Amino acid sequence: MIRTHAGRAELALLLEVASTPTLGNVDRHRDLDGLRFEHFLAGAVGARRGLRRAEAGEPIGRAFLRAVEGMADQRGGNTQFGCLLLLVPLVRAAAAGSLTADGVTEVVAATTVEDAADFYRSFDVVDVYVDDPPDGADDLDVRRGADAIPSIEADGITMFDVMSLAAGTDDVAREWTNGFPRSFEAADRIRTGSGTVLDRGARAHLELLGQRPDTLVAKEHGMETAKRLQRTARRLLEGDDRRTAVDAAATEFVAAGINPGTTADILAAGLYIALERGEAV
Amino acid sequence: MIRTHAGRAELALLLEVASTPTLGNVDRHRDLDGLRFEHFLAGAVGARRGLRRAEAGEPIGRAFLRAVEGMADQRGGNTQFGCLLLLVPLVRAAAAGSLTADGVTEVVAATTVEDAADFYRSFDVVDVYVDDPPDGADDLDVRRGADAIPSIEADGITMFDVMSLAAGTDDVAREWTNGFPRSFEAADRIRTGSGTVLDRGARAHLELLGQRPDTLVAKEHGMETAKRLQRTARRLLEGDDRRTAVDAAATEFVAAGINPGTTADILAAGLYIALERGEAV
Repeated sequence: MIRTHAGRAELALLLEVASTPTLGNVDRHRDLDGLRFEHFLAGAVGARRGLRRAEAGEPIGRAFLRAVEGMADQRGGNTQFGCLLLLVPLVRAAAAGSLTADGVTEVVAATTVEDAADFYRSFDVVDVYVDDPPDGADDLDVRRGADAIPSIEADGITMFDVMSLAAGTDDVAREWTNGFPRSFEAADRIRTGSGTVLDRGARAHLELLGQRPDTLVAKEHGMETAKRLQRTARRLLEGDDRRTAVDAAATEFVAAGINPGTTADILAAGLYIALERGEAV
Repeated sequence: MIRTHAGRAELALLLEVASTPTLGNVDRHRDLDGLRFEHFLAGAVGARRGLRRAEAGEPIGRAFLRAVEGMADQRGGNTQFGCLLLLVPLVRAAAAGSLTADGVTEVVAATTVEDAADFYRSFDVVDVYVDDPPDGADDLDVRRGADAIPSIEADGITMFDVMSLAAGTDDVAREWTNGFPRSFEAADRIRTGSGTVLDRGARAHLELLGQRPDTLVAKEHGMETAKRLQRTARRLLEGDDRRTAVDAAATEFVAAGINPGTTADILAAGLYIALERGEAV
């Protein structure tokens, strides 16, 4: 087993992208246009120094910013922003000896205005697909990057507050504000499934997709498309000859550019928790 | 670009195993029995702390031993022993600002008896397929692991001396004693080729295979099999519809258990040098 929490988190990023087939995502056997497997490999390697900072106890926002900067040192653009947003507090909780819903909630609830400022700075590092902010929250639009920091500071908004604002439409933010329920559940499924860890990762991806419409797909392509993807996942979970059918569907969604990135983020978090709980690759 | 030499070396390990198709080796699309893609991912992540030691200037033997210990923290067994034997001195040379034939030769020529002792200790960490030692050198059989250390110390054998003894039958050792010629040449080919970095890695693998019979295959299956693999590589380099033919041959050699590990080792070294020279993933 990898010795450090940061190393395990990096391995989780690698296992996530290698899990295959995953409908619509880059995986061991599929690339998107301009966003390829090797970009995820480089993103994972680059993110490690930020993950080490999380393990060492540096502020969550600063550790996340450093992880994103390292991740972005490749040509594919945003590879693992959402994954890191989940992994950074999970690594901190693990380093503190309490990788539980309560433990990670304690970590995220303790975030500060300065953490929020670093979170906003991270949007200047890499293009992240996000929705319009809620009504009346234009000042807090993350797309403003560091320009939004004066408003955040004036209003005393913490990083946890930012996530609370987004939790209705973004399932990564929803993990933050609800004790990371789907991350922990995915870890349990990965630990109890059969096959190789990459097979179990792919199965967990399909199960996560079937649970809730992917919020990145909903933002990029509309809720109807996100629900169609969810229905497809549910049908495939029940089918015979599952692997062949899932492979075909994975290729189809990749070709259509329907990329459930939020589901991949939660899978990475689940793989990380599984590794911390003794999953041996 | 990844910021540290150790990080680039880890990325080189990941790009090596992801390069596809590579005849007979685990690659993005192929596993061997019991030795799968995810074992290489975990091996690369685990090796990083030893690679960091090499970057920081710790003795070559000790850094290598730590890298192998980290690499071995997975269930596949020996994944990247030979790769690390090349990467550790290359990382040191890069950290010293002289990643050249002369620079790395200076590093390996300066190895000591204590480096040799740590090298022998590394054979106790993981099973490595090696040949019988040369006549009269039974005391130095690496398969004896740490038990051979008294003989090494009595004879004043350095790690470079050990490689010199093996250079006639092991092309990783031959890199050590000849200025890493094929590693640097592979880097040049990777830098000047076309396609994605994984395509160029696969092409470099085929070119390396065509140059010389793989010494691991020669040890495991005999020189005739190694030469047959070499001839196959040469034929494929000249063929039309290359990718399809190489894919078929890759699957065939994997199925036959003919695994040119030495060639993969040199490819990893070439990828590392290419990354140091500005290859941007």
